[in-house]
Amino acid sequence: MTSQPHKITVLVPKTSDDPNPIIHQATVSAPTNIACIKYWGKANPQYNTPINSSLSVSLDQSDLRAVTTASASSSFDRDRLWLNGSEVLDAATSKRFRACVDGVRALATDKVVVDPANGANRVVVTKDDWRGMHVHIASYNTFPTAAGLASSAAGYAALVAALVRLFGAEESYPGEFTAIARQGSGSACRSLYGGFVAWRAGGAKSDWSDSIAEQVADELHWEEVRAVILVVSDAKKETSSTDGMSDSVATSELLAFRAREIVPKRMKIIEEAIKAKDFESFGKVTMMDSNQFHATCLDTYPPIFYMNDVSRSVVQMIHKYNAWAGEIRAAYTFDAGPNAVLYTLDKHVVELLALVLKYYPALSDDLVGDYVSNLALAKEALEFKLCPSLMAAVEKTGRVHKHGDVKMVYCTRGGPGPQTLDPCDGVFDFKIE
Amino acid sequence: MTSQPHKITVLVPKTSDDPNPIIHQATVSAPTNIACIKYWGKANPQYNTPINSSLSVSLDQSDLRAVTTASASSSFDRDRLWLNGSEVLDAATSKRFRACVDGVRALATDKVVVDPANGANRVVVTKDDWRGMHVHIASYNTFPTAAGLASSAAGYAALVAALVRLFGAEESYPGEFTAIARQGSGSACRSLYGGFVAWRAGGAKSDWSDSIAEQVADELHWEEVRAVILVVSDAKKETSSTDGMSDSVATSELLAFRAREIVPKRMKIIEEAIKAKDFESFGKVTMMDSNQFHATCLDTYPPIFYMNDVSRSVVQMIHKYNAWAGEIRAAYTFDAGPNAVLYTLDKHVVELLALVLKYYPALSDDLVGDYVSNLALAKEALEFKLCPSLMAAVEKTGRVHKHGDVKMVYCTRGGPGPQTLDPCDGVFDFKIE
Repeated sequence: MTSQPHKITVLVPKTSDDPNPIIHQATVSAPTNIACIKYWGKANPQYNTPINSSLSVSLDQSDLRAVTTASASSSFDRDRLWLNGSEVLDAATSKRFRACVDGVRALATDKVVVDPANGANRVVVTKDDWRGMHVHIASYNTFPTAAGLASSAAGYAALVAALVRLFGAEESYPGEFTAIARQGSGSACRSLYGGFVAWRAGGAKSDWSDSIAEQVADELHWEEVRAVILVVSDAKKETSSTDGMSDSVATSELLAFRAREIVPKRMKIIEEAIKAKDFESFGKVTMMDSNQFHATCLDTYPPIFYMNDVSRSVVQMIHKYNAWAGEIRAAYTFDAGPNAVLYTLDKHVVELLALVLKYYPALSDDLVGDYVSNLALAKEALEFKLCPSLMAAVEKTGRVHKHGDVKMVYCTRGGPGPQTLDPCDGVFDFKIE
Repeated sequence: MTSQPHKITVLVPKTSDDPNPIIHQATVSAPTNIACIKYWGKANPQYNTPINSSLSVSLDQSDLRAVTTASASSSFDRDRLWLNGSEVLDAATSKRFRACVDGVRALATDKVVVDPANGANRVVVTKDDWRGMHVHIASYNTFPTAAGLASSAAGYAALVAALVRLFGAEESYPGEFTAIARQGSGSACRSLYGGFVAWRAGGAKSDWSDSIAEQVADELHWEEVRAVILVVSDAKKETSSTDGMSDSVATSELLAFRAREIVPKRMKIIEEAIKAKDFESFGKVTMMDSNQFHATCLDTYPPIFYMNDVSRSVVQMIHKYNAWAGEIRAAYTFDAGPNAVLYTLDKHVVELLALVLKYYPALSDDLVGDYVSNLALAKEALEFKLCPSLMAAVEKTGRVHKHGDVKMVYCTRGGPGPQTLDPCDGVFDFKIE
């Protein structure tokens, strides 16, 4: 995790009042997360709070992650932000960015170091000193832009986590950092924890400080869970989530009913399934909730379409697979795009990947190394003998081997929350002029 | 309407007790209908009644119709049924067929003729005589089987209407014939009237005799309404409506909510729109209800997909068209399949067809005569100059001219209910042995 594709060189001027400027830095990585119970619709756009609770799995960071270095110095003349190597002008004034920077800085603590001379603690930066410093933030992610996998959750989670480390911030109540991340990007609050994470809708408090993420179970509790992500090719331009959900809230009566009557029941079901490691229940409610989310998109006026015919063929394949097995061995879920995320258990992942590679093959088998993120697993899957009756069932849906419907396959799993990286993993290369 | 593609020759034996058998016959045609407010889900499978009311437009019969000859004779030794020229064995014992034949015969009246000798009325068949006779039914429809357009509604409506004529049946309460047709095929009850027809869910009466169709407005009330039907090519096998709706009733909480809370409001809105000839309101609620019906299919577990990527591209084109026009000029609706039915007004039909032919062209322009049911209109549309800004808007959705996405286009309109045909249009050719 030491690759820094976007090293940024910044010249820092010496100033009369600070001839030897100190630059404080922290670097973290954060995971993306894939929801099983979907967030769709804002209850309060100002606080960026949801109309219903949601639950997701934070994914392992070895393939997909966001890395952010947050730095602060009295010698910086303004707040600056770089994304994937390019500076984002005026970013410092954006509502989302300010909510995160100002929100975390308000929780800053004194920075204390041990004095080498006498071994005593020495405050090098006071809580108030931080307020006098501007920040430079640089972030990059390892999400192929082609993939269309939501990177904003990982990005804002990494931003908040880096700022927390930088300022030595401390929560005044549990989950306060997630409430800050939520104002950057709603689902980012769930990426501040690893494993299985719930985002409680909240709303009992007027300032929505109860709209926070909570860890339901960590990544070690049910480590057999695997995720296979099919990056589906799509020509059509998608509706942005923010626009889409405001249209849905404004026009879909089914969405309001879902948020009020259905999601609370499903949150109970899935949390119990996770605690009991009950994949049958976990998988079923995950599939039902993905379908219901897309149903409310279709009930929006004008309707919003995220799944395409390839997405639908994956849905049908998975149902045929489970029917053939006589149990739920795989569960699909789709976010605001055509990509399929398939949850399964380690004991079935080779069979599932074999099915995926059979019906959604790479353009050429030589390319399997570029096509599947885990080559060893891909080789096992290519050698796996699929049961003829299973193939017959899948082909009944009209599915045939079709090259190019899927661009790439990620084989991953649940993982931890934000990780603090070694200073040498920092994205900045500051040069004092 | 005199073509009889399936003339059927039947040998009728002379019997000792009836040396000169009389064969009573009636022939009718009936329309199909396309719902604007959708029927999806049975409240009572035995009575074949719906969980919500629905509303449809009965289409003109020149292109699409079912023709049925019902005959009865004391010399027939059993009930028999022919569909499109082939006898359906054991049809006479099917629940749906029996419900229609026995239901209408129970309302039979005496058949009276004027005696040429003395000009007096003479009863040739008593109400009770009908019970002693078996029936021979022959039906055919003009729906291209490839089209996948629902023909069962027209078929059962034609069956019931033919039996009514044959038996001189009289309703004991208004709508009783539609209650009988509903037991043959739910939506058939709406094809017993022309124009705009509502099917009232009923349920206040234990025998569901209040689940009947009513004409909201006849075909002359708003004759400017046009329907353009895009027969969309589709590889996938579809879920039958009967199976699909029982799965939806069993698994979709959104469907139950829709039936209970949303459809009653929409029935009021659309009936008012029809009476006021308000296309803006009629079109909007029609599109919203089509989308919501397909949303409940997607919310079914396992999900049911009827629309495909071509269907969705039509939806997006129509929304771009209406947005460009600043008013609703066309409204789409999709039944349990990928075919699009576009409602519009006569003043916009050429522009709409031009748009359809531009983005869903025939395989070759020479074929336009086979591709579009109305050649004159097709020629007008091909010469129509589409506004560049409209084409730009449509192409923003990613739509490009694509040959073969649509197999055929019907240009039609609202029309009357069942029509009694001349005896020479009868489907049977009876030969007394």
